[in-house]
Amino acid sequence: MKGDNTNTAKYAFSGLDRIFHEKARLGIMTALFTNEKGLSFNDLKELCGLTDGNLSRHIQILKDENLILVEKSFENNRPATRCFITDTGRDKFVNYMNELENVIKNVNKKLKN
Amino acid sequence: MKGDNTNTAKYAFSGLDRIFHEKARLGIMTALFTNEKGLSFNDLKELCGLTDGNLSRHIQILKDENLILVEKSFENNRPATRCFITDTGRDKFVNYMNELENVIKNVNKKLKN
Repeated sequence: MKGDNTNTAKYAFSGLDRIFHEKARLGIMTALFTNEKGLSFNDLKELCGLTDGNLSRHIQILKDENLILVEKSFENNRPATRCFITDTGRDKFVNYMNELENVIKNVNKKLKN
Repeated sequence: MKGDNTNTAKYAFSGLDRIFHEKARLGIMTALFTNEKGLSFNDLKELCGLTDGNLSRHIQILKDENLILVEKSFENNRPATRCFITDTGRDKFVNYMNELENVIKNVNKKLKN
């Protein structure tokens, strides 16, 4: 048997999209989801506890999937990067969160028994 | 600045232990958490939608951390493997789940605004 039998694979959690499930990206998406006016590169770095390199790498991955938007500008003659969540990113992230809630429900049901 | 400033790193989600956050292991732990009489290797494989190799690898990782217990025996003259969650595994998994609930709360709060 292949390991992809979704009918019986109750705990495969196929809705947990790996693009959001990775911990750093989960942080970035939560930060951008909750800050609809966007966040600067430095704010994101601090809020998510990431290094420059790590944040850059994950921003690129999310951008390539059209989940976030990156705006480059100049502030006080210095280059500034600002990130925003896209509508697609928002919709897909809400779906991911719904799946995460289902995972928790499985466990909570057992805890209450 | 190093990326490890936890005071301001609101979205670093440091409580999301990588041992549980990996999707396959999240499935295995949820399955074992909700089946306190343990599960056979084959049941786990089916429930989590994993291949033999993948399941073996993740079982070893969880076992090395004393989060699950692996019992080898013979059934009808064939070797049989059965896995159980340990008390440590149960406690740590509940902590992980609590952190996961906090992540969701951040997003839900925003959704209701």
